[in-house]
Formats: sequence, structure tokens, C-alpha cells
Amino acid sequence: MNIKQSIKQNKLEPLFTQAIFGIEKESQRILSDGTITSTNHPACFGNRNFHPYIQTDFAETQMEIVTPPLDKVEKVMNWLAAIHDVSLRTMPDDEYLLPTSSPLFMPHEDDIQVAKLDNEADVAYREYLVDVYGKRKQMVSGIHYNFEFQPKFVHALYDNEQADVSFKDFQSKLYLKLAHNFFRYQWILTYLLGASIEAKPEFFKNEERPDDIPAGLIRSIRSSKYGYVNNDDVKVSFESMEAYVDTIEKMVAEDKLIEEKEFYSTVRFRGGKNAREILKNGISYLEFRLLDLNPFAEFGIAEEDMRFIHQFLMYLIWIDEDATEAELEIGKEMNFATSFENPLEHSSYELEGKAILNGVSDMLKQLNLSDDIVQEKLKAFDNPELTLAGQLALIYNQGNYIEWTIKTAISNKEAALERPYALRGFESMELSTQILIYDAIQKGLHIEVLDTEDQFLSLKYKDHLEYVKNGNMTSLDTYISSLVMANKVVTKKILAKNGFIVPDSMEYHNAEEAFRDYGLFNNKRFVVKPKSTNYGLGISIFKEGASEENYRKAIEIAFEEDSAVLVEDFVPGTEYRFFVAGNETKAVLLRIPANVVGDGTHTIEALVNMKNEDPLRGKNHRTPLTLIELGKIEQLALAEQGYVMTDVPSEGTTVYLRDNSNISTGGDSIDMTEEMHETYKEIAVGIAKAMGATFSGVDMMIPDYTKPATEAEPGYGVIEANFNPAMMMHIYPHEGKGQRLTLDVLDLLFPEMAVKGDQS
Amino acid sequence: MNIKQSIKQNKLEPLFTQAIFGIEKESQRILSDGTITSTNHPACFGNRNFHPYIQTDFAETQMEIVTPPLDKVEKVMNWLAAIHDVSLRTMPDDEYLLPTSSPLFMPHEDDIQVAKLDNEADVAYREYLVDVYGKRKQMVSGIHYNFEFQPKFVHALYDNEQADVSFKDFQSKLYLKLAHNFFRYQWILTYLLGASIEAKPEFFKNEERPDDIPAGLIRSIRSSKYGYVNNDDVKVSFESMEAYVDTIEKMVAEDKLIEEKEFYSTVRFRGGKNAREILKNGISYLEFRLLDLNPFAEFGIAEEDMRFIHQFLMYLIWIDEDATEAELEIGKEMNFATSFENPLEHSSYELEGKAILNGVSDMLKQLNLSDDIVQEKLKAFDNPELTLAGQLALIYNQGNYIEWTIKTAISNKEAALERPYALRGFESMELSTQILIYDAIQKGLHIEVLDTEDQFLSLKYKDHLEYVKNGNMTSLDTYISSLVMANKVVTKKILAKNGFIVPDSMEYHNAEEAFRDYGLFNNKRFVVKPKSTNYGLGISIFKEGASEENYRKAIEIAFEEDSAVLVEDFVPGTEYRFFVAGNETKAVLLRIPANVVGDGTHTIEALVNMKNEDPLRGKNHRTPLTLIELGKIEQLALAEQGYVMTDVPSEGTTVYLRDNSNISTGGDSIDMTEEMHETYKEIAVGIAKAMGATFSGVDMMIPDYTKPATEAEPGYGVIEANFNPAMMMHIYPHEGKGQRLTLDVLDLLFPEMAVKGDQS
Repeated sequence: MNIKQSIKQNKLEPLFTQAIFGIEKESQRILSDGTITSTNHPACFGNRNFHPYIQTDFAETQMEIVTPPLDKVEKVMNWLAAIHDVSLRTMPDDEYLLPTSSPLFMPHEDDIQVAKLDNEADVAYREYLVDVYGKRKQMVSGIHYNFEFQPKFVHALYDNEQADVSFKDFQSKLYLKLAHNFFRYQWILTYLLGASIEAKPEFFKNEERPDDIPAGLIRSIRSSKYGYVNNDDVKVSFESMEAYVDTIEKMVAEDKLIEEKEFYSTVRFRGGKNAREILKNGISYLEFRLLDLNPFAEFGIAEEDMRFIHQFLMYLIWIDEDATEAELEIGKEMNFATSFENPLEHSSYELEGKAILNGVSDMLKQLNLSDDIVQEKLKAFDNPELTLAGQLALIYNQGNYIEWTIKTAISNKEAALERPYALRGFESMELSTQILIYDAIQKGLHIEVLDTEDQFLSLKYKDHLEYVKNGNMTSLDTYISSLVMANKVVTKKILAKNGFIVPDSMEYHNAEEAFRDYGLFNNKRFVVKPKSTNYGLGISIFKEGASEENYRKAIEIAFEEDSAVLVEDFVPGTEYRFFVAGNETKAVLLRIPANVVGDGTHTIEALVNMKNEDPLRGKNHRTPLTLIELGKIEQLALAEQGYVMTDVPSEGTTVYLRDNSNISTGGDSIDMTEEMHETYKEIAVGIAKAMGATFSGVDMMIPDYTKPATEAEPGYGVIEANFNPAMMMHIYPHEGKGQRLTLDVLDLLFPEMAVKGDQS
Repeated sequence: MNIKQSIKQNKLEPLFTQAIFGIEKESQRILSDGTITSTNHPACFGNRNFHPYIQTDFAETQMEIVTPPLDKVEKVMNWLAAIHDVSLRTMPDDEYLLPTSSPLFMPHEDDIQVAKLDNEADVAYREYLVDVYGKRKQMVSGIHYNFEFQPKFVHALYDNEQADVSFKDFQSKLYLKLAHNFFRYQWILTYLLGASIEAKPEFFKNEERPDDIPAGLIRSIRSSKYGYVNNDDVKVSFESMEAYVDTIEKMVAEDKLIEEKEFYSTVRFRGGKNAREILKNGISYLEFRLLDLNPFAEFGIAEEDMRFIHQFLMYLIWIDEDATEAELEIGKEMNFATSFENPLEHSSYELEGKAILNGVSDMLKQLNLSDDIVQEKLKAFDNPELTLAGQLALIYNQGNYIEWTIKTAISNKEAALERPYALRGFESMELSTQILIYDAIQKGLHIEVLDTEDQFLSLKYKDHLEYVKNGNMTSLDTYISSLVMANKVVTKKILAKNGFIVPDSMEYHNAEEAFRDYGLFNNKRFVVKPKSTNYGLGISIFKEGASEENYRKAIEIAFEEDSAVLVEDFVPGTEYRFFVAGNETKAVLLRIPANVVGDGTHTIEALVNMKNEDPLRGKNHRTPLTLIELGKIEQLALAEQGYVMTDVPSEGTTVYLRDNSNISTGGDSIDMTEEMHETYKEIAVGIAKAMGATFSGVDMMIPDYTKPATEAEPGYGVIEANFNPAMMMHIYPHEGKGQRLTLDVLDLLFPEMAVKGDQS
């Protein structure tokens, strides 16, 4: 098949450049002295039986991070970042992830704990591996790069080829070609990206460094013939799928392999449980297994290398060549040889390497794509110190290797902890959604982002699928309950009917009608507000009644904002937000307007700047709290209290910079979950139930939260209920204990998982 | 208690003018010859055991229409209109409601069917009444006017009075005063509103007109001592609640009354099952029972009379006077005497009547309210022919009474049938909500309009309460399913995952990105559209591929409407709307663009005008179909087909006035529910299920609706699913059978009612 020609003739370039990627990355959990930890895989990660993202490889300490298949390299990098954030923040405080493939210090065989899995077959398989290969070799970690061409591309190729084979066979042939050429040229990746440069005696079974390994550093012990390879008597053909199936089954039948998955090849066919099933289904994608961890990349693989490998793979089917079995063997030998090279010396195959990379560059130009990355890689052929092994060798030769590696591990963990409320890779989404994804990754739910802008996720546990929008809009709420809460008048009618205390309220559709009812309010405490606005606009509060003139003015102001106006009893007390989830109030929050507390030394301006240094404060709803501004509104608020910005308030004096208590204008959130009297929490649950809501943010005015609510003295008034209550402010409050509401959401959505029971 | 003074001092005027009203209106079902029908109460009204709005009084033919308690006279009139619409449209075609209190032709005793109720006690009570009073007297119908002061008003009075009685006793006293003064002055209402002018022999038990009834016409036989009154030996005191309870219980104990409700008084205390319970609870409202049907008012009582009675009742507590037991007796006698007066003669108590009405007028002026209605009533004292009885007498004396009454009955029914899709009284709401209310009234659900503008209802059957917005937003749908449907991209992803055929689609966030992918589409049929707009704006359809220039233009146009643009496979076929409710596709609709069919004679303009005469066509979504316009867009559409408005299309030629098929721009709706192949209906149900939706409007493109959908040839493509699908166009289509989807909504919401099983 002349793929290049078919792509050009049929304008398949955009489809050809699309692909589906997935990364599996193993790494050892270490302590700050560089030794491998002895703790178990954290229980908080849920069960490895089903966890899609955080697994263990051979050893209990060898954490494996697995991304889902994704259609963009950026997405893979985002997922790697996110799973690393979850892993690193969940691990014990004194543990880090080793950034290199090889352990800095190889433990004694006896100290290596094989992964403690539930599944007996998995355990038995690992025990067999211990027998055959020893434990130490298995302690070396790497990256698996899963790759699938865009299925539409393969279909288009097939349609245009008019081949007389089935689509499945056609597809398998395409991937066979890719595998063949990969074996032939994989040495290029080992040259550029090999990064396990030590061949220490402890690595080998007999604790002796074999003689055929050159002295000093090498490019990659893991990709060498002493890496994770089968015995020489294991021979599997890649000529055709049929030949592959026949030979691998023969190896198992002859006990040369205990099972098919013991066949360690740098390329694996995927698309079924075993080879015969792949033969039936066709190869659906390939797994490339020869990559070492890139210690310079925070997540074990650099984005430009992911892209480079993609371009390299595209090139391997773009060319006419399809390597023969003999050429495959040559390629494998070239790879072994490359792995043994001195990292700071030129490649023995420099000319072939450059020719191939120039070919990749040429292809990219024909596809109107940038070849910048390939040009960088070409430079590494002239400058071996630019390869990963080369860079590591320079560090090693300076005697800093261990120190540098540990420092890197620590700084990677620090990066994950820097903004503990955010989830890297998903930072364009709302904070609540970021935290929900964090928890879902931790617990092992299958997550799909259906729409980033719309905060739309699907979450799945076994066969149980749930959709979630904005963190807590779910199937647990009915459509009508959200509509009830969205309508203040309906909310109040329903709550009043159900016996809850709501402010008495009149609704007007024109000012004249409202003017006439002045007598209803003149000597009461009341509030005039537009029916549907939510941002405090057009609201007048009369805490001691109002003159007719002021009443009329307030009505007119409110009608400027809406065509319907409410005149409502003023409810005394302090406003608290109750977050109800199901049958419980899970969090209670007091919000107070933006403020600073004087110290007798600093100006208000300085105090604000000091308060704003809190890493929880930021802008644009991407932090749990908001920076306090010093604009006109704040200066007006100061003026009302008799201050200017340059005043120095006395010690302990609270100065407010806002009248409103919104978190989005710099307000402080104070968790009151434990302090609030239980009776009010029960009332909040009842309010949510009356509206049929599972998740609701109930706002109540309460004069004294320590006094129980009784029938005779209810002690509260409901302001409103919110159908999309913010969770963030409860999770990371300014003061008090954070309440992990996202876990409550998951717990209610997936009761069968016992999400919160797993919490450690 | 000096109420007038308390109102003035405490500015209670706005509260004093508020009240809660309810009307019960009996009337006989008659045939077009004026005789009472012999059919049963229609089964379609559901069960009288619980029906809150449509009941039967004494006789099976005596329909009773009951409004809920409402806080505005307008609302009562709206409900009366609505229940009349439901009653008149549901009754057999040849039946009408008699607009007068007295039957035109009194049936033989044997032909009168007592109401066929399920409840044994109800039946026994009616049998007892037959024994004691005979059947005929009970065939006379009237209006009960239920009245409650605004509870806040009574509380405010109580708070200001600082009386040393409990609030309940205070409230009872207030209503006792109202009752006393009502008895004293009720004759005024009989004078003005009495309207049962015949005292025919058939009315009396012995078929002899008693001698003490004056010859000729009278004001009200129903309010006379031959009306529905107890024997003379029934004596009940109204002096206090205690006296009332003692005496009425004594009457029952002495077998002078079979039970308390046999006590026929023009005023009844309400607030408990029996007198003793009312004593305990306090009187909560009064029922005034002396009104005849007003045959000049479409619904038995005129709005101005409802208002007049309200003003009259206000006056009865405004005045200091509290009639004594002796005065009560005088009042009753004056009422009997008034009822026997000649309708065209002046009242014997003209002076007192005018004095009272002038008092009402004076009160209204002090309250800054209009006294227009009272002034009209005052005129009726100078001109007896202006009273209801006077007007009727004029008709009677012209010999047209029977004819006029029948004509009125027929024209009232015609008025109810004029706009069969709309529900009078609720016409400011959306049509779907109007029809849902219609069905809910018919079936006997308790309905409360929680928010008119927001189309928010509560519906209740026994203890089962449901909220409904916009006709089909309910608790049966989850919040997330509506959000899934609201997001086209998410919808498509979910449907594709579930194996449904959706057009392949790419989403772009900037034009450059989209331009690059031209190759993906160039030789395919495709559509370019903004991600979120719904109104056809910015959409380009390429049915035969597109040049790169046109592709780029289309992308740019779409980006003018939205920040995200979809490029989607064009799906061939005709678009159908499937309305899914639960496990069934309940309706299928084909929508075709506004069009006319030529007849070889008329111009396009004339054809449009002729088509627009269909009463189903109107404006502003208040009719099932929309008027076809003849504006710029229509002229452009004509020009595309080579027409101008003055052209005369040949017979049978269809000329389109629009490219789009929206009903809101004059499109035709054609019901295809029966024609559509069952397989597509099942697919629509599956689509709704995949999104977790109970109610969904699924839009599918289908090339051939007669051919079954098969796995090999699906024969459809899903365009989108709507979470608030219009029901109206299915219920009243332009062509084909209407599908009563509102009944399906009720059926799913209240399965225990078997709503559709009751359908007749």
C-alpha cells in the first residue's frame, strides 16, 4: 500500500495527523534519602482491582500512572499532570516519586515487596517472574506509549485502497507495517530518549556486572539486552498476524513463556485478551514499551517527545518500506548496541538516524506542519550531550546525580502541592469540577470530560454511569427541583406551605400597585428588591421602616432592574449558607464582607496587600478566595466607616472594605459546620426535601446559632435556596475546617463504592 | 370593637381591602329544548369522590362548579371561566348549562335522578331530603359565595385591639358580627340580585301555588320562605358561637334536623366538620348561600357583583352596629318579603337600602377606592327594571323568557367552544400549560398556579404533590438529563456511545483551526453551524461539498453567532419530531415550511390570506399555528422559486413562503404518529432513555418512514433532542389526528389516577 500517495490524492492529511494516545508510567515511591519506601500503596487510592488510573506494577512501591486513551497530546499531558497531582498529594508526606527509571539504591531482594494484589492469578504471575527474572530487574520503571491512528483515517485509506481484504485485515496490516518499521528504527528513540545510564552490579541477578557491558555510563540499561527481555529461545514472528499467533502460542505450549503476556517486546499488539483474539478482531492499536522515564520531564515524558514519537510513527507508515523479518532482527541488535553506547559519544548509526529524521522533517513539510521538534532532535545527533542520556551523564560526571535526582523528586512534589485546591491539567474548568475530578481520579472512577467549557463530565464505576455538570448537577436532582429553586417566589410559596419560616413577601408588576400598599409596610422592617436579579442590584433595606417618599424611591429603583418587584419582611440575624447533600447538612459557612484587622502599625492599604498574599486568594474564580481590591466601591465602604486607605487602624479593629459578603468580592469564608446548632442543620435538610432537592445551598438568617430552633421560637428565616451551590468556599474556607463536599457528591452518586469509607 | 377606627389608626386599609373568595355554582344540564337531560354526569370528569372543581349537587343532572379559594376577584372569575370551559366542552354535544336558577320545565318527581354518588352516607342524606322536601325544590340552583378576610388583617386588628380574648375568639366574633349584619341586610342582595322570578305550581310539593305568594312574577322564589328553608320549628341562635353550637346540636338531638348540614341558613360558619369543631377552631370563613344564578352573567355571577358583595361585606364590619337576635329575625322577614315583591316595583325598604349603599359608598371613599359599582346599584333602587329580577321580568313579559334562556345557554356553550385549544381564565399562560390545566381540571387534580409568568403549577391528587413548569418539566426528569439535552455536543457524544446514528461532528473554537480541516469535508455533504444557537442563524448547508472559499465563508458566518462552531455531516432525509413520554413515542410530527397550494384562480397573497383564516392560526404563540406573513423574508423565498406575491399558481402547485419549517413562522404541522414505522418510534424511545429523559422531543432525519430501521440500514440520523418540547403543535396539528400529550404527562405523573383510563 502506498500510503503517502493515498493521503495526498484523497486529501487525508488532516485525518492522518489525528491519533489516539495513552501513556502508562511506572515509578518508584522513594523517601527523601533516595531509598525506596517500604509502605503499602496508599489505601486512599481505592481498589487496584478496578482503578483505571493509579495502579501498581511489579512491586508494591512501583506506582503506575495510566492515562485514558485521548485524541490530543495536550490532553495526555493534562491527564498525566492531573494523575500526578492526585498521586503526589495523596502519598505520605515523606514520599516522592523517583524521576529516573533505575532505582538510585537497589534494595535487597528480600526487601522488595511484590505488589499486594487481590487477584490470585496476578499474584501468581508476579511470583513466577520473581523466580525467572529475580525481583531487581523488575524494579526498573519505564513508559508505555499506546498509539492508535484515527479510525476514520484507517477507514478512509481502506475505502480508497479498494483492497481485496477485509477492513480488519487491512487495519492489521497497517499496524504490522508500523511495528516492523518501529523495530527497525527504534534505536533512534533509544539514542535520543534512553535515560537509564547506570549498569550497576546490584541490578544483575548474580550481582556482577556482565563483561560485555562497556565500562562507564551507557544510554539505557532498560533497553539493553540485560533489560526486560525474554530468553534467547523465545522466538516470535512478526511477519503476519497468523505467524505471530502461531509462534507465540507455540512458545507458551513449549513452556518457554508462562503466558502470552510474558513475551517482552518493545511493541505489543492490542485489540484483544490474547493473540488469537487479536487475530479475530484485528489489531486495534499498538503499545510501545521501550521508553525510559525522562527525569527532566515532570511527568516522566516531555510533551515535545510525545509529539516527536507521534511524528516518527506517522513517518513509519508514510514510507514505502516495510521491514522484513531479517531487518527486524537488525533493528533489535542496533537498539541493543545503541543502549550500550557512551551517552556523550556520537551514535554509531548517526547517518541512518539523520536520514530518517530528515525524512520525518520532509513529511511534515509536505503535510504543512512544523518540523521544529525534529530539527531539535537532529541537533542531538551532532551533539550527543543534548540527548537525555547525554544530559544525565553530564550531571553524573559532576558527581551530582543522586543529589540532583532527589532534588528533582522533591521539587516535583512541591509543584503538585503549590496550589492544593487546583488540579493541573484541568485548570480551565471551574474549581469545584477540578476538585471533583481530583476525587474521582483518586477513587478510581472512569472520567470523561464531555465538554470542558460546560463543565460536563461522565463518571463511571463498573457499569454504573453518571453525568455531572458544574460539580453537583446530577441525576440525583429532578429537573423540577432545580426550577423551583431558580424561582424565588415559587420557592417561598412551597417552603411556607411546608411550614418553614420565610419572609412574608408581596410581588408587584407596576410601581403604582406597590405605592398603594405602602400602608402594609410603613412601620415594619422590610426589603425592596427586584424579583429575579441575584447580584444585590436594586435592593433597598429598611431596618426601621421607611417614609413614604423613601418607600417610593426604593420601589422605583427596584423596577429599574426587573419588571417584577418584591417587598419582603426584613429577617434579622446573620446569614449562613447550609450545603445540603441528601439527608445531611454537610457544611455550614459564614461569609463576611472583605475586611482587614488593624495591627496599629500598617495602613489599610498595606493590610489589604498582606491579606492578599494568601495563596488561596486569586482572581476569576480560579481560587477559593478572591483578592481584595482597593477600587472605588472599597473606598466608599471605607468612607462610610470614616476611613481612608492610608489610615492605620488600631490593633484588633476590623475594617470592612465592602458592604456585601460575596466571596467573589474578597469576602471571607468561615466554616461553622461544627459550631452550628444541629436543629438548624436539620431544618436545612427539611427545606431541601420540601423542594425535592438532593444538593442545595440553603441561605438562612439566624440571630443566634448556639440556641436551638424550636417550634415556639424558630430562630431562623429562609432567604433562598440555590440549585448550583458553590462547593469551593466550603472545601477551602478562609477560617475553619474544610469540608470535602466533592467526596459527598461521589458518595451519593456511587453508594456502592463506599467512597468515603476508603478515606484515609 | 370599633373596626373603622382601628383600620384608620393603624393604616390597615390595604389589608382590609384584601380577602379570600370562593364560588360554588350549581346549574342543571339541559337539552336545546330547555328540558333537563337524563344522562349521567360525564365519566370523563373523573370521580366525584375527590373532584375538587366539578361535582354534582342534589340531582345527577345538577352540575356544581367549585373554585378553589382565591385572593382576588379576577382570579375567581378566571377559574369560573376555566371550569366552565372544561365542563361545557366535555359535556355531550347536545347538552347545555341552564343559566337560570329555576328549571324552565320541572321534571316529574319520578324522572329526577338523585346524584349517583359512591359514598353511602351522601346517598342516604339525599334520600332523606327527598322524603322531607321532595325532589323538585332541590332542582333549583344557586351560587354560594365563600368569604374570608385576609388573615393578616384579622391578626392586625387583634394585635391593635389588645382584647382580653384569644385570637380565635376574636376572629369568631368578627365573623359573627358579619353574619349578624348580613342577616339584617341580606334583603338588599335579594332586591338587586334575586333572579328566580317564577313561582310555578310544579315547584311546590302539592303542585299548588300557595295563596300567600303574590300573583305574577316575584324577585326570588329561591330566597323566599318557599325556598330552601327549614321548618319553622328549627330554631338556631346566632348570638354567640356557644349559643349556635348548643342550639344546633339540640335540633339534631330532637330529630328536627337529620344532621347539622340540613340547617339551611343563608349564612354558614366554616372552619370545621361540625359546629362543635368550629367552636374549637374558631370561625375561619363564612359561606353566603342566598344568591340566585345571574342569567346575564356567563358564569352565573357577574364580576361587578362579586366586587359589590365584597364591598357590602366590608361595610358590614366597618359599621359599629352589630345586629341583635331580634334584628336578625327582622332581617330574615325583610328578605322573605323582598323575594315576594314584583320585580318591576320599587323596594318596600328603598330608604334603608339607599342608606346602606350610601354608607358603602362613603366607606369606599374613605378607603380611596372607587364607588362606581355601588352607584350603579343605587340607580337600581330608583329603577327596579335595572335589578336582575327586573331585567328578567321585562324579557318574561315580552313572552321571550324560555327562548331567551335557551339561546343564552347555547351561546354560552358556543363561547366555550370558540377557541377549543385555549382555556379562558388562563390565556396569559403558554398554550401547553393552558391545556394541561384543562386536563387537570377535567380529571380533578388540585391545581395551584405558583407563578403565572413562569408557567409554574402544582398539581395534587390526594397526598401526591407534583410541580410542573412549562407543561412538561417535572420531577420525572432528572436535572442532568435536561442539561445533557441542552448541550448538543454532549448529546451527540452520549448518543454515539450508545450506538445511535448521529452526524459526525467537529467542534472548533477559532476559524484558523477550522480552515485547516477543510480537507476533512471538501467532498462530503456537510453543515456548518454555531454550537449553541437554535434559530437557524449562521447555518450553512453544503449538500454537494463546498469550495474552500465557500467553506471559509461559512465558518466565518458561523463564528459571528457563537464562539464555538460545529462542522457536521449533512444527514439526508426529512426531519420528524418524535415526542417521547416515558417508554413510548406518543406523537410524531412532520413540519413543513409556510406554504400555500395554488388553485389556478387566486394570487399567492390571496391564498395566504385564505389560509390565515384558520382559527388555529394566530400570533405570539397563543394559537397552535402561526399566521403566514408576507414580509421581506417571505418575498425572498418566493423570488427563489421565481414567484412574486401577485402570481397565480396553477392548481395543485405548492408554493413555499419560507425556507425554514418552524411553526412559529407559519409552518404546517402534520401528524404522522400512525404512519411512522414503529422501528423509528422505538429508536426515539431509546434515544430518550440514553439521556435519562422521560419527556423529550427527538428530531430525526428519515429518508423513508415506511421502511423499517434495521441494523444494516439504520435509515435515520439524530439531529438533536429537546428537553422542553412544544406539545401544542402535536395536540392541534394542521393536518392529521391531534395527540393529547398533556394527558400523557398527567398519566405519567399520577399513574395511580389512571387518567387515560377514565377517558371517554
